[in-house]
Amino acid sequence: MNTSGDRLEPETAYSQLDTPAVVVDLDVVERNARAMAAWMTSRGVSLRPHVKTHKNVEIARIQAAAGASGITVATLGEAALFAAHGFDDVFIAYPLWASPVKARRLAEVREQVRSLAVGCDSAAAARMLAGAVGGQSPLAVMIEIDSGGRRSGVRPTAAATVARQAADLGLDVRGVFTHGGHGYRGPEERQRAAFDEVGSLTRAAGLLRDGGFGRGPGGLVVSAGSTPTAALSARAPVTEERPGVYIFGDRTQVLLGSCSWDEVALVVATTVVSVSVQGLGTQFVLDAGSKVLSSDRPAWLRGHGHVVEYPQAEIEQLYEHHAVCRMSGEYEPPVLGTVLRVVPNHVCQVPNNVDDMVVFRAGTPTGERLRVDARGRF
Amino acid sequence: MNTSGDRLEPETAYSQLDTPAVVVDLDVVERNARAMAAWMTSRGVSLRPHVKTHKNVEIARIQAAAGASGITVATLGEAALFAAHGFDDVFIAYPLWASPVKARRLAEVREQVRSLAVGCDSAAAARMLAGAVGGQSPLAVMIEIDSGGRRSGVRPTAAATVARQAADLGLDVRGVFTHGGHGYRGPEERQRAAFDEVGSLTRAAGLLRDGGFGRGPGGLVVSAGSTPTAALSARAPVTEERPGVYIFGDRTQVLLGSCSWDEVALVVATTVVSVSVQGLGTQFVLDAGSKVLSSDRPAWLRGHGHVVEYPQAEIEQLYEHHAVCRMSGEYEPPVLGTVLRVVPNHVCQVPNNVDDMVVFRAGTPTGERLRVDARGRF
Repeated sequence: MNTSGDRLEPETAYSQLDTPAVVVDLDVVERNARAMAAWMTSRGVSLRPHVKTHKNVEIARIQAAAGASGITVATLGEAALFAAHGFDDVFIAYPLWASPVKARRLAEVREQVRSLAVGCDSAAAARMLAGAVGGQSPLAVMIEIDSGGRRSGVRPTAAATVARQAADLGLDVRGVFTHGGHGYRGPEERQRAAFDEVGSLTRAAGLLRDGGFGRGPGGLVVSAGSTPTAALSARAPVTEERPGVYIFGDRTQVLLGSCSWDEVALVVATTVVSVSVQGLGTQFVLDAGSKVLSSDRPAWLRGHGHVVEYPQAEIEQLYEHHAVCRMSGEYEPPVLGTVLRVVPNHVCQVPNNVDDMVVFRAGTPTGERLRVDARGRF
Repeated sequence: MNTSGDRLEPETAYSQLDTPAVVVDLDVVERNARAMAAWMTSRGVSLRPHVKTHKNVEIARIQAAAGASGITVATLGEAALFAAHGFDDVFIAYPLWASPVKARRLAEVREQVRSLAVGCDSAAAARMLAGAVGGQSPLAVMIEIDSGGRRSGVRPTAAATVARQAADLGLDVRGVFTHGGHGYRGPEERQRAAFDEVGSLTRAAGLLRDGGFGRGPGGLVVSAGSTPTAALSARAPVTEERPGVYIFGDRTQVLLGSCSWDEVALVVATTVVSVSVQGLGTQFVLDAGSKVLSSDRPAWLRGHGHVVEYPQAEIEQLYEHHAVCRMSGEYEPPVLGTVLRVVPNHVCQVPNNVDDMVVFRAGTPTGERLRVDARGRF
């Protein structure tokens, strides 16, 4: 939708909403799903979108229809939810620790799907995973590589060692994966993180192949993933990308250069509830706070979202139900009761904060709502 | 519960949990409820706790049993939920804009409760509220005063003007309220914000009385409210306090001096899932990320929570499902799979992120769960 502030959408489309409301334009969602799938096809890379962003079955189906092969999830709870809705190729891109309770849940998910893989970055975690699945066919694992994000994953040079340990424990080592999360650390980091993903995976995959892995029919899965890097890292030896945010876009992605304002598919509709406090510049308060927008904010980014109709405003302070916006010039404040749109800093948090999302098509509400099916599923 | 890290709770009490899990010790909740109520009674001030912190009917009943009179909510959705569960004295401490859809919802809540008051900080909002309730008895409003937080509310000197406008529109002006939110801006601000609350309310209440308000049997309600200031501002002319966080406590409150570690009643139980990335000091990763802890962090506070068993660790980076913790010394990392406890920075976000909370008593799980009844109710 048009979220740059250049053109205003018809006011009435938003002014009837019960705010704060999370609004998703499914036309834009479909466009984003198709564009990413087409790009991956042109690169010969599989697309396995991360569904933690939307947590919604219908949108995952749109992604599948556009050409995604399988889904990525962060939690066992998400895996179980999507498995129950027929998604039968699931990768839990997380270093799951298979405690007794998680082992039971993992076994349940496994029975429902055709293909399940789990992230692993240590021999100890591999031992728990191997113990979790008993006498069934081997559980597939993907060895996590740290490509510079310094969160989880082993060094590329240690990948073959962990892979060997996992294989010796009876696990099916399917490949390697990484998340170049340092691509979020600023616009100039995006290209670097993409290089780091490809470089680290090249090294790790080479060592795994030297160690005898990936000789089966499917070969080695080499999986990179994040929206900022997806456009830049989709090349050999990468065989799969796992972007999530691209389906909606958000303020961070626009400022990182990963999408344009017109590709933003989700906004929070919010009402101007107070203009009573004034001082330096012009202040107004919206009824969208951290309980809908979340407090996510990269260190390099000022403010807590982009106000579409007032792009000159900064959301300076975010409380649970108040967004305090300031325009540094002496502007006329918006009229009390006006419904404005905010593009969140980080969209992955936003659907998770609401029961459902309001559907728009062609710039107007369709009357439908999308339930956040996997909300709060850990 | 003991969250200072001095003594460890029995490991087994937490090690069986499916993490991340939000754990509430109801013994500590009851102690906190009684302590705040006793303090308010000793000051001759009514306690109207803000239930947005827990969003749970059972805990609101514990507060009522301890002596709270009525509840405070932030949203119409919370008001409706608690009204449906028999809470019949509700204050929506928010400058509600009564759009047509909100007006209908407001009328529904009104029919269910004995007493309902709504915040108001402008003549325009008063006009909407007056129009919302049609021919029924006058809707009660509380005029919001800005006591220095500079979020919403009018200057104390403007209170009587807005009160007069509201009364002329047919509303029942019950009193004035403020939230000294600037008490959250650092330990040294807490006392100042408490003085500001009392000072601003004194001025505003005086002007309202001069204007003829508060001559009814109940007198003028003069309401202050926040956990950091509640212990310091509960004095004349304040007649009512609205703290919320005190029921659980959190890391911010401990560091502001509003509660002790032993008064913290809510922790997030979380598993060590990765120790693979090392570098400066010792790093470990927990499975509690921003989707349970939230990213809330005051500017003066480093890190994203307090790790009870490793108080020397800083949660440096918070992702949706990873908390990256660092100890600057060369410590032995925790053993993979260990369940640790994190005291969140800001507890009001945490229950809202989960379907239910695990109940502890006497340091062990009771087997019960508390549903987050008003989760996502806007």
